[in-house]
Amino acid sequence: PTPLRLGVIPGDGIGPEVVAEGLKVLDAVLGGAAVETTHYDLGARRWHATGETLPDAVMEELRGYDALLLGAVGDPGVPSGVLERGLLLKLRFAFDHYVNLRPSRLYPGVASPLAAPGDVDFVVVREGTEGPYTGNGGVLRAGTPAEVATEVSVNTAYGVERVVRDAFDRARSRRGHLTLVHKTNVLSHAGRLWQRTVAAVGQEFADVRVDYLHVDAATIFLVTDPARFDVIVTDNLFGDILTDLAAAVTGGIGLAASGNVNAAGTAPSMFEPVHGSAPDIAGQQKADPTATVLSVAMLLEHVGRVDEARRVEAAVEADLAERGDRVRSTAQVGDAIAARLA
Amino acid sequence: PTPLRLGVIPGDGIGPEVVAEGLKVLDAVLGGAAVETTHYDLGARRWHATGETLPDAVMEELRGYDALLLGAVGDPGVPSGVLERGLLLKLRFAFDHYVNLRPSRLYPGVASPLAAPGDVDFVVVREGTEGPYTGNGGVLRAGTPAEVATEVSVNTAYGVERVVRDAFDRARSRRGHLTLVHKTNVLSHAGRLWQRTVAAVGQEFADVRVDYLHVDAATIFLVTDPARFDVIVTDNLFGDILTDLAAAVTGGIGLAASGNVNAAGTAPSMFEPVHGSAPDIAGQQKADPTATVLSVAMLLEHVGRVDEARRVEAAVEADLAERGDRVRSTAQVGDAIAARLA
Ligand SMILES: CC(C)[C@H](C(=O)O)[C@@H](O)C(=O)O
Ligand SMILES: CC(C)[C@H](C(=O)O)[C@@H](O)C(=O)O
Repeated sequence: PTPLRLGVIPGDGIGPEVVAEGLKVLDAVLGGAAVETTHYDLGARRWHATGETLPDAVMEELRGYDALLLGAVGDPGVPSGVLERGLLLKLRFAFDHYVNLRPSRLYPGVASPLAAPGDVDFVVVREGTEGPYTGNGGVLRAGTPAEVATEVSVNTAYGVERVVRDAFDRARSRRGHLTLVHKTNVLSHAGRLWQRTVAAVGQEFADVRVDYLHVDAATIFLVTDPARFDVIVTDNLFGDILTDLAAAVTGGIGLAASGNVNAAGTAPSMFEPVHGSAPDIAGQQKADPTATVLSVAMLLEHVGRVDEARRVEAAVEADLAERGDRVRSTAQVGDAIAARLA
Repeated sequence: PTPLRLGVIPGDGIGPEVVAEGLKVLDAVLGGAAVETTHYDLGARRWHATGETLPDAVMEELRGYDALLLGAVGDPGVPSGVLERGLLLKLRFAFDHYVNLRPSRLYPGVASPLAAPGDVDFVVVREGTEGPYTGNGGVLRAGTPAEVATEVSVNTAYGVERVVRDAFDRARSRRGHLTLVHKTNVLSHAGRLWQRTVAAVGQEFADVRVDYLHVDAATIFLVTDPARFDVIVTDNLFGDILTDLAAAVTGGIGLAASGNVNAAGTAPSMFEPVHGSAPDIAGQQKADPTATVLSVAMLLEHVGRVDEARRVEAAVEADLAERGDRVRSTAQVGDAIAARLA
């Protein structure tokens, strides 16, 4: 079979360390010859050196891969927003990653901050290309006492329909339960669009039970009864907030995987741990690569290697079950998971 | 002394039940003659009967009170947004309730869903009159495949500065620690205004330590280390989300009090439990009136009756410490708290 062609952006901080383990596990499950990786030096280091975030030529090259793997980008020396807008969100928007997929599962053996979390296994389908993330809005009279700053959340029937449809599909192949999360009682322009769309698409999914929660109420259930959720569909910003909370509830950001998926297949999808670059522990082999390894499993599933995806997940699950309080280096965790796949 | 003049909006669902207990406790601590209450029939019942949400004449009457007490409004028969926009938010905006004050304290004896919550005692200062709550935005081509719906978050230097200043003041009289929560790396137009304002006002508060967290990260800390917070200042929507989560972490929405405060004193402030009208348990004496009683304590503090406020809080604290799993009616809880004030 033709090898899987991956564009890899290790990024900054702990990014390179966790990506190395993700690729180690990928090699172990596919066999080295079955993967071709090309590394791209993008992120804070490059920005400091050249002022570049994502040159057009690099973006076009990235477009040619079967999928992308990203570690984490950013360091405290880069002004807030520069790499987010110029690199991470630029990739999500340019490659039309409209399904930002974030599973939350409490694996056996993993400690939750909740006293009685129950059997937690849900996935958040976060819209990835519009909402409050468009950068629309602006500033009038910046820096004066008369300043006005606006942020415009842009929501289209086109954008909402495709992500809602994807979420219904996933609910159908899971436990048949979809929860729309929004704030329709206040953000009623966008809220009505989301609710109308869920109602309309739901006509085609009579086997899927549909619930609605305001985003504030959803955060309550995420700590009092997270096991109630199967698939959550929500907008870009609510999804950002809920998935960090969901990660915390299911053992922390060190385990949370994500996929920025272009489900139409018109550009490569990108897989990345939900965590950031954690500059405070960078280069010390302290980071947990599990989130990246699970992101690799999502990548495998996305490119149709479903068996291999399940094997990686099973290896992670087995490792987590025996992990306990042991302190291991980033590489040791990667080695242990890879060894289970040999 | 002249009696305290209160406008009371019991509202719908459990609203009237919990408000009755709040007023019972108020009578107990002040003595009946010291309070004059006028009840207003506003909410779902009135809307169903007359189509009115908040007639102008009623609003002008409400403007004349020393403070307002609200139970909860809404029932499933009212379309989402009608009472929120037409009554609750209308009052908050018309009476310029720019400090939406929401304390979170884990009282001794109260169970948290967290396994190890620690010593939680913080207050969220939520901006109450702008941000994504203005209703700005609109819909183009509603109901068609080409629909575009926008929500505009409006943030002004005027609005941000006054709430940030209030939050610094509160931090100074508490443990001297202020955390700004926003999403500056994505919502950078508004984010920069908030950050610049906190930096500028902070110059006058050298004794207050200032932190910043993205809203997604803040939700993580609210479940992994809520004791780290003292005062959080944030925008209207982030504040809505964080305070429901904070309520859940500190024993649930049945205990969460709030004040919609016009700190400039140009219109009456309004105090209300964070919970809603809970139509499923309405009229059954099942609702916990504690959130309303604690809102009454906030009301007392606001009108300068600080000793009485502290006495109500102490009575609640004592009741909570002995509460355990006992099942009591709404009135029994109110009676027990009132009895401690006799
Ligand atoms: C870094 C930031 C732009 C990003 C987001 O807000 O989407 C991150 O928080 C995430 O969830 O992937
Ligand atoms: C009912 C709703 C409009 C309100 C809000 O969003 O502010 C409520 O959730 C609250 O927190 O008081």
